[in-house]
Amino acid sequence: MKRTNLDLQQERDKCSFNVQELTTLIDGGPEKTAERKEREDVMLSKREVFDSVPEEYLSHKERYENAVRKSVVLFSLVRKMQEEGKTSITNYRDVVGGLLGTSTLRDGSPLGLHYIMFMPAILNQGNEEQQAKWLSRAWNCSIIGSYAQTELGHGTFIRGLETTATYDSATEEFVLHSPTLSSYKWWPGGLGHTANYCIVVAQLYTKGQCHGIHSFIVQVRDEDTHMPLPGMKVGEIGAKLGLNSVNNGFLGFDNVRIPRSHMLMKHAQVLKDGTYVRSRHSKLNYGAMVFVRVVIVFDMVNYLSKAVTIATRYSAVRRQSQLKQGEPECQILDYVTQQHKIFIGIASCHAFRITANKLWNTFHAINEELVGGNLERLPELHALACCLKAITTSDAAAFVERCRLACGGHGYMLSSNLPLMYGLVTAACTYEGENTVLLLQTARFLVKTYQNLETNALTPTVAYLKSAIAKSHERWSNTVDGIRDGLQVVAMRKISYCVENITKIVNSGMSFEDAWNRTSIQLVAAAEVHCRVIVMTTFYEEVELLANAVSAELKEVLHQLVELYSVYWALEMLSDLLLYTKITQADVDKMRLWYEETLGKIRRNAVGLVDAFDIRDDMLQSTLGAYDGRVYERLMEEAAKSPLNAEPVNDTFHRYLKPFMQGKL
Amino acid sequence: MKRTNLDLQQERDKCSFNVQELTTLIDGGPEKTAERKEREDVMLSKREVFDSVPEEYLSHKERYENAVRKSVVLFSLVRKMQEEGKTSITNYRDVVGGLLGTSTLRDGSPLGLHYIMFMPAILNQGNEEQQAKWLSRAWNCSIIGSYAQTELGHGTFIRGLETTATYDSATEEFVLHSPTLSSYKWWPGGLGHTANYCIVVAQLYTKGQCHGIHSFIVQVRDEDTHMPLPGMKVGEIGAKLGLNSVNNGFLGFDNVRIPRSHMLMKHAQVLKDGTYVRSRHSKLNYGAMVFVRVVIVFDMVNYLSKAVTIATRYSAVRRQSQLKQGEPECQILDYVTQQHKIFIGIASCHAFRITANKLWNTFHAINEELVGGNLERLPELHALACCLKAITTSDAAAFVERCRLACGGHGYMLSSNLPLMYGLVTAACTYEGENTVLLLQTARFLVKTYQNLETNALTPTVAYLKSAIAKSHERWSNTVDGIRDGLQVVAMRKISYCVENITKIVNSGMSFEDAWNRTSIQLVAAAEVHCRVIVMTTFYEEVELLANAVSAELKEVLHQLVELYSVYWALEMLSDLLLYTKITQADVDKMRLWYEETLGKIRRNAVGLVDAFDIRDDMLQSTLGAYDGRVYERLMEEAAKSPLNAEPVNDTFHRYLKPFMQGKL
Repeated sequence: MKRTNLDLQQERDKCSFNVQELTTLIDGGPEKTAERKEREDVMLSKREVFDSVPEEYLSHKERYENAVRKSVVLFSLVRKMQEEGKTSITNYRDVVGGLLGTSTLRDGSPLGLHYIMFMPAILNQGNEEQQAKWLSRAWNCSIIGSYAQTELGHGTFIRGLETTATYDSATEEFVLHSPTLSSYKWWPGGLGHTANYCIVVAQLYTKGQCHGIHSFIVQVRDEDTHMPLPGMKVGEIGAKLGLNSVNNGFLGFDNVRIPRSHMLMKHAQVLKDGTYVRSRHSKLNYGAMVFVRVVIVFDMVNYLSKAVTIATRYSAVRRQSQLKQGEPECQILDYVTQQHKIFIGIASCHAFRITANKLWNTFHAINEELVGGNLERLPELHALACCLKAITTSDAAAFVERCRLACGGHGYMLSSNLPLMYGLVTAACTYEGENTVLLLQTARFLVKTYQNLETNALTPTVAYLKSAIAKSHERWSNTVDGIRDGLQVVAMRKISYCVENITKIVNSGMSFEDAWNRTSIQLVAAAEVHCRVIVMTTFYEEVELLANAVSAELKEVLHQLVELYSVYWALEMLSDLLLYTKITQADVDKMRLWYEETLGKIRRNAVGLVDAFDIRDDMLQSTLGAYDGRVYERLMEEAAKSPLNAEPVNDTFHRYLKPFMQGKL
Repeated sequence: MKRTNLDLQQERDKCSFNVQELTTLIDGGPEKTAERKEREDVMLSKREVFDSVPEEYLSHKERYENAVRKSVVLFSLVRKMQEEGKTSITNYRDVVGGLLGTSTLRDGSPLGLHYIMFMPAILNQGNEEQQAKWLSRAWNCSIIGSYAQTELGHGTFIRGLETTATYDSATEEFVLHSPTLSSYKWWPGGLGHTANYCIVVAQLYTKGQCHGIHSFIVQVRDEDTHMPLPGMKVGEIGAKLGLNSVNNGFLGFDNVRIPRSHMLMKHAQVLKDGTYVRSRHSKLNYGAMVFVRVVIVFDMVNYLSKAVTIATRYSAVRRQSQLKQGEPECQILDYVTQQHKIFIGIASCHAFRITANKLWNTFHAINEELVGGNLERLPELHALACCLKAITTSDAAAFVERCRLACGGHGYMLSSNLPLMYGLVTAACTYEGENTVLLLQTARFLVKTYQNLETNALTPTVAYLKSAIAKSHERWSNTVDGIRDGLQVVAMRKISYCVENITKIVNSGMSFEDAWNRTSIQLVAAAEVHCRVIVMTTFYEEVELLANAVSAELKEVLHQLVELYSVYWALEMLSDLLLYTKITQADVDKMRLWYEETLGKIRRNAVGLVDAFDIRDDMLQSTLGAYDGRVYERLMEEAAKSPLNAEPVNDTFHRYLKPFMQGKL
């Protein structure tokens, strides 16, 4: 065991609270902590899933091959855990995604979609017969599936998908076809060379009529030889900013025939003669979308926890410049600008986790209602999930990148693990609903709600809109309550501005759609503030509830995080507060001091706060963030792993450089 | 010749101005355009510098080898151009860096630093004898050099560098030594396996006394065998977020001896007996730093021009969602939120280029004064270069990334060229002075200036601080002039706030340094606003000057860009305007409409505006941005180049997947 860096040790010595207590709180109780640790022990027990040569030195093809090699090791473990009853589909997200999955399959797995999309799709959309047939085969991985919805030409606007599935009652088959280049499926994980089955989303045609998009199970490759079946043009889409081990694929159909039974028929059906039977629950798919988006929020918490752990520990170890001449160089964590860059990330981890937990519980409660046929709360839930996904992914991307930049040049090294993480997090700003589009969906709900403010009963997450009208004339108070009230007023005023603006433009003779487009920058802004109100309020309220159950020391720290989060966003949205509340310049000056003081308070416990995320070194995978703080040693050790460093002189010297230097080229 | 996408053609047909006229304006005249095109023709004439398999599919080592192969081809051309008198050290930046360099050596070149740092360092710091000896060898590349300043443990704080150069008068040699692991040189481009010489910055010790950092020419590798010389621990530092063809290296010294004549002695000197002769121009190095930072601003303009070209053309080709039911899907360029993401990038290219040109000219004028011994304007120039580098790199990074995200999933493909570009641009936020540190240096100048506002004559870039005091009571005007005045007031008020706050804290008993640190978030903000005032004002004034020399159509477009730039930043800094000027809520509402209207005006000419940057397809290297708009075809063509797609079944199916699926693993 190498000695821990002294500065880091001193940080730990002066921490004011019990780190273990916070870890337990984050996990949700001591049993959960124990379970997590056991899962980590099992999943990280096989040393062959760790690379001796880091993946970044491999070629694209080698990376894929390495990912397959490691994936089968890991998913054999998952299969074993299933057999022992230690895991189920509900905690795949802990195993496949989450901290664990991204530790060993750092840039994604070609088998991920099999668990995250293929199996859930069969579960949600297949009838009992289909589930019986396909789920058991998928469950024990005797087939590997992917999920193909997005096409080259269509992502956001799924109604515009071009792939067709035309029913032929003569043979009782569907004919899948890609009528254009832009109709090729594009993006499905694992589809390139890994999956042999795939759920395909296509426009259903029967009896000459289009019934919109439906899902089909399609065999893509021969189960024995893995060769693409006739009529399938399949391959991988090429290199990306991140997710390069995912084997994202393309797929085109040349009149491929599949049996009628391969349409997933839990909801809508096509009878033998081609009669189309409409789904009675056309909105049920929103439930699945909400589910996926909440999972994404948890993913963001995981990545962001890693990033702040790395940046905080590095900032405690790194010493640079003298604050005062003659004194030793100081820890860069002492610079207020550095605290400003990192601490909001720490607070956001807690705010997002707590909000996502609440949404997760609400989702499960509402899901019961959904299954019972009560769809009343679905629009609210959907609107909430949309903006939460958008805000948490864009904040996480911004804060991960801020952490990377806060680590200076060393953050630019892949061995810091920060660049790879950014690639994964920023992807989430685009997939499962592009963020701007999602915020506009939330805005649509908010505008409707506001237009019916007087007549309709308000659902919980928008109830504040009514009370905010009264609050808008209150005196400003520089407290967390005051900020919450102020931001509620801002959200209400921004929505009302949008409603008025749209009305004005419509009255001037334009269409509603044009008026909507003209107002869209403000609509996005309104949805964003609404979401921040929800996150901040939930964080605040839940911490108040928790506070009674924890030690006085931890309680104080949790309150500091709530304060930091609130004041940070109040200052970020200052122009709106100045426009719509009674805040004065003197209040602003005081608020800035409050922010700086709060940074100062958190400074003392910064290392303890990230230690509490309890991310093992072999999950963190960072030269800058390891628990012992041996930053420079690890940077040098990692550099030694570069295959270029295996030889003192690279062959290109003789082939190119020397002739060039001698003027022979 | 494939047909151009119809939507793109229609955009070109409706452009209101002459694209060629704007191109000429950007280049600086028709001769400059011709020169540029000739240079492009020469440099892009060798087809072997374009990759048949895109670099992203190679391993790290192969990428390096490929970069060496291509570099010697390109630099042989450069050498030929030198011999023909067609290039000189002053336009290396066009050839090595800039649009051209990054087209073929897309992720940097291991020979870049030889031209950009090694040769200029000898030129600026070597005496005549040293220049005669080394420059000719460097000029014709019979030696290849790097420049080693940053160490594992020190970047920002160069006074803290640990490498020592101790003079031994007995042998008339310097002994170079790395006393610690953190003193290893880390980052120098080309140092890993390419350069055989290097400028090393080290703490000079003579007669037992330290004289601070000085530069030395050090031979690192044998000229014939390329083996590292005894006592040199040299290699590459490993994989990074970007710049992976640069071969950044590390270097440690174990008591390496070099002759006395290898210290660069244009300024300070060490005599034979070890007597140290101090430099008379200790500040001259600031001149070199200013030079490098202006070059970075031009680089940012290049990258950002590429990014907006790609995003704009793609947004004209991509159709997604129906604005109105039943209508065809619309070009995403018609969404106001999309315009909001992209157009500020177009305006910024012009604002930055024009500001950098002016700074470049000022720099050359002042440089004459410097050489003549007049250092008076150096602090101002230095302060300006610091904040300009910081603001243009962080804006460019943000806007390049915004362009990438605006291209949705396809922007995430490396073949879009946007991810690679972000990697290069964000690096500039850290190198040559970390941005936060640079802004604090500008802030230091501003605070000093403000403290002496009454007594000292004000240099040009800060003259507005005095006039702004009077302006702060004026009525708000929603015009470009009004915004300029308003932002000047904001800058002045933010600086005065900092000065007062520091004074207050000092008066409460704290040290100046602690007060400075406590105020640093606001100091950074003050420097940022100051810089935005300079850029906006320069852009505005220079366009006014240009406007008389161009056609009425182009004049109108240039004014729209100035408006867009001004209103965008006014809205971004709205909280400050609300705090410090007389702007009202009604003004703000009007300003938002003004912004949206300006977006609408620029919409019509968006494609023409990016066409005017005149970036050839083989320089743009983007599936999404090519001139003909064949987006989907190119995406598919690029995917076909992935080596994984060469075989229908990857070998891992047999080795891993099949056994796994059969439950044998």
